[in-house]
This record gives sequence, C-alpha cells and structure tokens, in this order.
Amino acid sequence: MDLVEQLDHIFFPRSVAVVGASASPEKVGFMCVGNLLEAGFGGRVYPVNPGLSQLFGLRAYPSVMAIPGEVDLAMVVIPAERTLSTIEGCVTKGVKGVILVSGGFREVGTEIGSDLQAQLRDIANRGGMKIIGPNTLGLVNPRARLNASFQHTLCLSQAGNVAVAAQSGGATIYIVHALTNHNVGISKAIGLGNRCNLDFDELVTYFGQDKDTEVIVLYVEGLEQPQRLINAARQVTKRKPIVVYKVGRGEEVNRATLSHTGALAGKYEFYKAAFNQAGMIVVDSLMELVDVAKALAFQPAAGGNRVAVLSVQAGPGIIMADKCRQLGMMLAQFSPATKHRLRQLASPLNPVDNPVDIAWRSDEFDACRQMLKVVLDDDGVDAVTVAAVFYGSNMELMRAVVDIAGYNKKPIMVCLDSPRGVAYAEINALEASGIPTYPLPERAITGLAGLVRYGEIVKAVGGGGGGIRTHGSDISEQRFSGPSP
Amino acid sequence: MDLVEQLDHIFFPRSVAVVGASASPEKVGFMCVGNLLEAGFGGRVYPVNPGLSQLFGLRAYPSVMAIPGEVDLAMVVIPAERTLSTIEGCVTKGVKGVILVSGGFREVGTEIGSDLQAQLRDIANRGGMKIIGPNTLGLVNPRARLNASFQHTLCLSQAGNVAVAAQSGGATIYIVHALTNHNVGISKAIGLGNRCNLDFDELVTYFGQDKDTEVIVLYVEGLEQPQRLINAARQVTKRKPIVVYKVGRGEEVNRATLSHTGALAGKYEFYKAAFNQAGMIVVDSLMELVDVAKALAFQPAAGGNRVAVLSVQAGPGIIMADKCRQLGMMLAQFSPATKHRLRQLASPLNPVDNPVDIAWRSDEFDACRQMLKVVLDDDGVDAVTVAAVFYGSNMELMRAVVDIAGYNKKPIMVCLDSPRGVAYAEINALEASGIPTYPLPERAITGLAGLVRYGEIVKAVGGGGGGIRTHGSDISEQRFSGPSP
Repeated sequence: MDLVEQLDHIFFPRSVAVVGASASPEKVGFMCVGNLLEAGFGGRVYPVNPGLSQLFGLRAYPSVMAIPGEVDLAMVVIPAERTLSTIEGCVTKGVKGVILVSGGFREVGTEIGSDLQAQLRDIANRGGMKIIGPNTLGLVNPRARLNASFQHTLCLSQAGNVAVAAQSGGATIYIVHALTNHNVGISKAIGLGNRCNLDFDELVTYFGQDKDTEVIVLYVEGLEQPQRLINAARQVTKRKPIVVYKVGRGEEVNRATLSHTGALAGKYEFYKAAFNQAGMIVVDSLMELVDVAKALAFQPAAGGNRVAVLSVQAGPGIIMADKCRQLGMMLAQFSPATKHRLRQLASPLNPVDNPVDIAWRSDEFDACRQMLKVVLDDDGVDAVTVAAVFYGSNMELMRAVVDIAGYNKKPIMVCLDSPRGVAYAEINALEASGIPTYPLPERAITGLAGLVRYGEIVKAVGGGGGGIRTHGSDISEQRFSGPSP
Repeated sequence: MDLVEQLDHIFFPRSVAVVGASASPEKVGFMCVGNLLEAGFGGRVYPVNPGLSQLFGLRAYPSVMAIPGEVDLAMVVIPAERTLSTIEGCVTKGVKGVILVSGGFREVGTEIGSDLQAQLRDIANRGGMKIIGPNTLGLVNPRARLNASFQHTLCLSQAGNVAVAAQSGGATIYIVHALTNHNVGISKAIGLGNRCNLDFDELVTYFGQDKDTEVIVLYVEGLEQPQRLINAARQVTKRKPIVVYKVGRGEEVNRATLSHTGALAGKYEFYKAAFNQAGMIVVDSLMELVDVAKALAFQPAAGGNRVAVLSVQAGPGIIMADKCRQLGMMLAQFSPATKHRLRQLASPLNPVDNPVDIAWRSDEFDACRQMLKVVLDDDGVDAVTVAAVFYGSNMELMRAVVDIAGYNKKPIMVCLDSPRGVAYAEINALEASGIPTYPLPERAITGLAGLVRYGEIVKAVGGGGGGIRTHGSDISEQRFSGPSP
C-alpha cells in the first residue's frame, strides 16, 4: 500500500476503534468515543476495554484483536507502558493507522521514554502501519464527519479547502477554531505530536495530491531532518501554497519544544531562510497564518505586487496603503485612461489617485461596479482591495463587489467590519461569491501579501502557467467549500 | 470658560441642534438626528432646517438662532459654502461646540477650501467656540447615551475607560467597533477631521483629567505642529497610558493624507521616535492598538519584563514564549523555592520550567490556584500569562484565575479561544474579574508588551509610585466599566 492509499484509509476510515474507551465522562477515553459519535461519523465505532461490555450503546471489545470486522483507524489512550502489546495487536489486526494520544514517550526526556517510542516505531514500520503521535490530539476530517480527537469543539469545524498539520495539539485546535471563526473550512487537520513514523513531509506530499485540499498550513516547532520537509514542499508548492508558522526563538523556547514533542526548535533564522527558499510562505503568528490562509483559500495568486485601494472612508484606505508599503507591495500607478474614467465616475469632491476615495458613490451600484471594472482592467493593477465600514449605503458597493467577483482573476480583498455581528449577511454574501473579508484594513493587506508572495513563488519555481495560479477558477467553482455552508 | 469645562459641555451636552436635519432617510442630516434618538440621548434635540416643521415628532427650527433654549452642541451637515453664516449664528447663540460634518474645506486642496476653513477657525476662535472637524464623523459618549455622529452602529458601543481620538472618521469607527467586539468599553470617541480649532493635544489634555478615561488611544495621520501633541502627551503619560497608531509610510500615503484631512503625514520615523520619547506607546496596526488598549483597560502596568507562561497545551505556551522573545520580554527564571513548590503541585509527567506545562492539573481548582499564587509570589516574575483551549476540564483553571485576579497587582493575561462563541460565559467571567482574554496566544503577549512598555514609561518619567501604575486598583474597582455590562 502506498502512502496516499494508506493516509486515505486513515482520513476516511470505514471503522475506528478506541483502545482505552471509558465510561467515566472526565476520561479522555470517554471523550474520544463521544466525539466520534457527536460529529456524526458514519462508519463503525468500536470501544475497546476489557472491563466494559458496552459504551453509548455500542458493544465494547476486550482487545483490537477481538473486533470481528476490519479496523482502519485505532485511537489509543492507555498508559505508555501498556502500549507495546496494543500496537503489536493493531499490526496483527491490519490496522492502517493508530492515533497514539498517550504521552510518556520521547517528550519526557528519559531513556525509557525514547526507547519505548523507538520500539513502537520499529513495530509500526515493520507492520506497514502509521502511528500518529504519540502525545497527540488526533485528526479531523469534516467531509467524513470524523472528529478522531479528544477535543469536543472540533465537531464545529466546517468542510473547506485548507489542510492543517501541526506539531502541537493545542496549536492545531487554535488554528482550526480561528479558521472556523473566520469562515474558512478545512479539508483535514492533524496534530502530529512526537512524529513517531508519520512526519510533516509525508503529510505535505499527501495534501499535495489531495483533491479536497487547496491550501496547506503547517505549525512547526522543530524537526530532526528539515531537509525532508523542504524537499517535499519544493515539489508541492508549484501546485498548492504552503503556509508555515515556525516557532523557536532562543534557548528557553528550544528547551520547551524538546520537552513538548521531543524535538529541538533549532536555529530560527536557518529554518526561515530554508523554508523561504523552498517556496513556502513563512508567517510570524497564528493571526497572520489565518489571514494568509483565508486569502489563499478564497482567491488566486496575484500576478504582481501593484495594489489598487478603493475605500469609502479615506482613513482605512490610508491604513491599507501604509500596510502595503510595509509589506513590500506598492500602490499601482493608474494609466491615464483609468484616471480619466475614474474622474468621470467618482464624485468631484474626491481625488481619484490611488488610494481611491469613493465616499460619495458607495450608494450607487452601477458607479461602484464600473469603478471596480476600470481598476481591474488596468494592466498596471495586480490586485484590488476595498474597504468600507458597515453603513447602509456602502452595501451597494458590496453588492457591486459580489457582482464582479472572479471577473478577470485578479485578487479582490474586502475589509468590512461587523460590530456585534451586524454585517453577518453581507459578509456571507461576499464570501459565498469567493471574496474574503477581514474586519480590519491592515489584515486584508496581510492576506493579500500572501497572494502576492504565492504569485512570486509560482513564477520562481515553474515554467508554464504564466505566473498566475491556474486553479483560481477551481476555487471559484468550489466557492461554497471555503466558507461554512 | 477653560478647555476642560468647554469640552465637558461638548461631551455631555444638555442639548444638541442638527443643522441640515432632513426627512430623507438617505441623507446624513436624517441619520444624525436618528442616531441621537436611537442612542437614547436624554437632552433636547433640535432639528434645524427652514423647510421642515418637524422631524421624528420633534419641532424643527429655521435656524440655530431661532431655537428658544440654550444649545451646547450643534452638528452641521450643510454644503461648505453655506457654513459661514451658520457658524456665525452658532457663535452668537453661545453654542459651546460645533461638529462640522461637512467636507469641502482644506482637504479638497483648493485655495477656496483652505480660505473657508481659515475663516471658520477665526470666527470660532473669536467666539470662544470649538469646531470639531470640518470633514468629520462626530463624537460618541456612551455614558451620556450620546451618538453625535452619522454612524448608526456606534449606538452599540459600551461605556468603559478607553478614550479614542482619531484623525479619520473611518478609523474611529473601526477602532470603536473592534473595541466593542473585544469587550472593551469607551469613555469617549471623537473623529477630529481637519482639526479646524480642536486638535489632538487639547483632547489628550482633556482625557488626561477626565475621570472616566484611564487609557487614551490615538490614530494620527499628520500634524502641522507635532510638538504640541508631544508636550501634552509628556504631561499626561505619567498618569494615563497613551497608545498611538501613526500611519504614513512613503510619498503616496503622504499625498493621500493631504487630500484626506489636509495634513502631510510627514516622516514616519521622526514621528515614531518623537512619540516614543514623549512616553507614548507606539503601535503598528489597528489590531495591535486594540490588543494593547485592552490590556491597559483591564490591568496595571508591569513592573518589569520577566514573564511566567502557564499553559495547558505546550504548543500555545511555546508560541507565547516565542512572542515574548520577539517583543523584547524574557521568560522569568523561577527561584529554587518556586521550582520546588511547582514540582510538588504539577503532574510528574510535566516539566516545571518556564513555560510551565500544567496539562494534567487544569481540572483541579486548588492545584491551579496554588500554582498561580506560587508564580505570582516569585520576585523574579513581573507578569503571568495563561493559555488554554476551550475544554471542559480547563475551566477549573479559569475559575482559579478568576479567584486570584488582582492578588498582588502583577498583570495576568489569558488566552482562551471560543469557536463560534462557545466560551462566552467563561470569557465574561474572566473579564468581569478584570482579566483580559485574547483568542490567540501571541495576541495576549502583544497586549502584555503594552503593559511592560507602560511600566517602563512610568519608571522613566516619574518620581514616586515605585514604577507600578498606582491606579491598577482603580481599574479593578471599576472593573465592570471595561467589559460590556
């Protein structure tokens, strides 16, 4: 079985066993079974515990071996010292993958812990089985209605096109929750923990060919063999953007990552340079990761860094212009024809230089649509950003943005704020048409910087395609997979 | 009348006239009257328009002069060319302040516009009247139930301790909305527009003595006389923190600010250095502004930069540690006694170095409270940050944080995420006890950096007080003014 086939079995299992299933609600072995059921998983669920006859009305088994049918995925939540025989049993049973939630291995820093992990790895490798973890959260696949983790709130995640792989369970949860709160769906999410015999490079390769995934997001603490990830990323980034947040500045952080998942964070600057060279998009916070992933989930790469800013209020336009400059983009110089047309369309009260102040036209759908089209048609413009506060008349401008969405594959980003959720319907309409929205002007520009960077990566790594990410149209076909349905 | 008395009349008016009141719902003159009523303003509202007999059931007047009673505040929303006589009428009537919403003055870049603004300024100065604007949004004071602006959603703002003054109406709206969405109330908010004869330095001085204000937030594009703001800030920052976001990188942005509010943005680096020297907290985005203002609204300044990180999941703890390092803070070195106590309290599975992983104790209120106390008692610790994902058992940790809030005036910051709002009650409980929460680990550290910076400022500028902001306790007494009630 090749890696792709094996990971398909793990992310789309027909059956899941939970070894260490428990009837005590405070136990992780209870939550794992409960989350599988609550997410609505359609396959078989087998609680495994010699002391239980049933759980949630499901028949329980004394061991994995005792389960009558096939088992694709097993979650193991038992003390570390009892895992060896269980993992051996899983191999014998033909389990494709084990989520080893338990801690007490390499991360504790003892020889016993490291030895145990090495033994598990050898057993799994010989048996052709993948171990996710140990010391891990598990994985989520909304399309399979699969929440194979101990985190209940991951049942709230929506299906979308962003794949998440993180070294930390906590970071996985924060990332998935933040994407969910920002209306971005996920294709898969997985916490890798100690990476016993399943590592970032294999996930990147898998997500690279996964039809449900269009954007790959990684949270990395430290790697033993960074070259493996770098090589895999270099292949995949031609087709799909890879956004990576690497932590690990200074010695204390190194010590913390070592005791967390058993890996030194290593020299931050080395990683940053190497990841950049491999064509990954390196970000510097979870917030930036979410803003950039959202842009890439909704919009095609930018063909260049020349940005047109259209703003109903001048202040937000100035903030956008300022942030463009800070992030290495520039304000587009409009052609004389563009300026002439804008002069005709805009209010005489407003200048039509970039940033364009469209204050007195934001209540006119036709004027707004024409201004957007004029700017998108200018060969000197690579991307368009629009900013407006939530105000009745500005919603005609937003209708115009929805109407022109996807027009000539140049990215369009919107900043529209929503105090206490009042702009819910307008934001949903924009995002249903493929336009990502952000609550603050500079965050739309942060997202756009990711599209510009990915445009540069595509140009740098590869021949045909003209530099523009060609599956921009795929995204717009799949546009309901990004936001929540 | 001195400045404070005059601005008190403007922010707490007994009566407001709206010149240019309109019965057409799409007109700004309609919205201004509507917003005053919708916010529940308790004083008199006088629509002024010679063509109207009444509006919203209120009697309308042909001019400000024709209004029988006193008028403290007038909103003026008529074409620029007709403002001269209106402003003269306001002076004659004894109006304390005019919000000149109309545009068409200095910002249009014509001699006529500049001359008109200069004439208005002279009339107002001679008459001892303040003009807010022209070309402005207006102002908001939730304690007076006053929304004297054309922006309807500002009726949603909550009373709190943060004052906002911004050169841009759009930026004012974004800032107030973002504060509202982050559970931070405002004392006052004002859009200054072209700053005819009311400028930042006067607002800073006023907010400096305003009992409802504990944090001052500024959004600045460009100033003719930056020294005036710098001098005012230097006086006020001893007592209250001033957070400033200055835009204006590069020439295009300069051009945009000039056509926006008639002021050149000037050299960014000059401003940044001068603001820093004056003891202002310079931030670089609206998001950072909100995160820092939230920290200052809830917590005292930090006595130093040595941070203890307690995290249920190691990953978020590592992200916090990483961000501390990036923002010039350091992980505290625990004393031997602290380490010894933590070793007794923590799970044997977890290391007790900083960042402290409290994974297996987060469901034990007493253990969590004792660990927090041990860390707060360590003389080598200046501030404590806590991170947890939303998970049932972690809520015992959050209860412990609520219980220990305010213990020894060292700042405590919490990261607790809330997918689709599930942690609403827990976040409210934390914030009601004075603990600010953030949805992502690095944002809690960004907020903390503001507390550390303000601690440094207080030490640098001023004698007694021992470096710790002494009104930390005032904040906790007023703790319900920060979050929404």
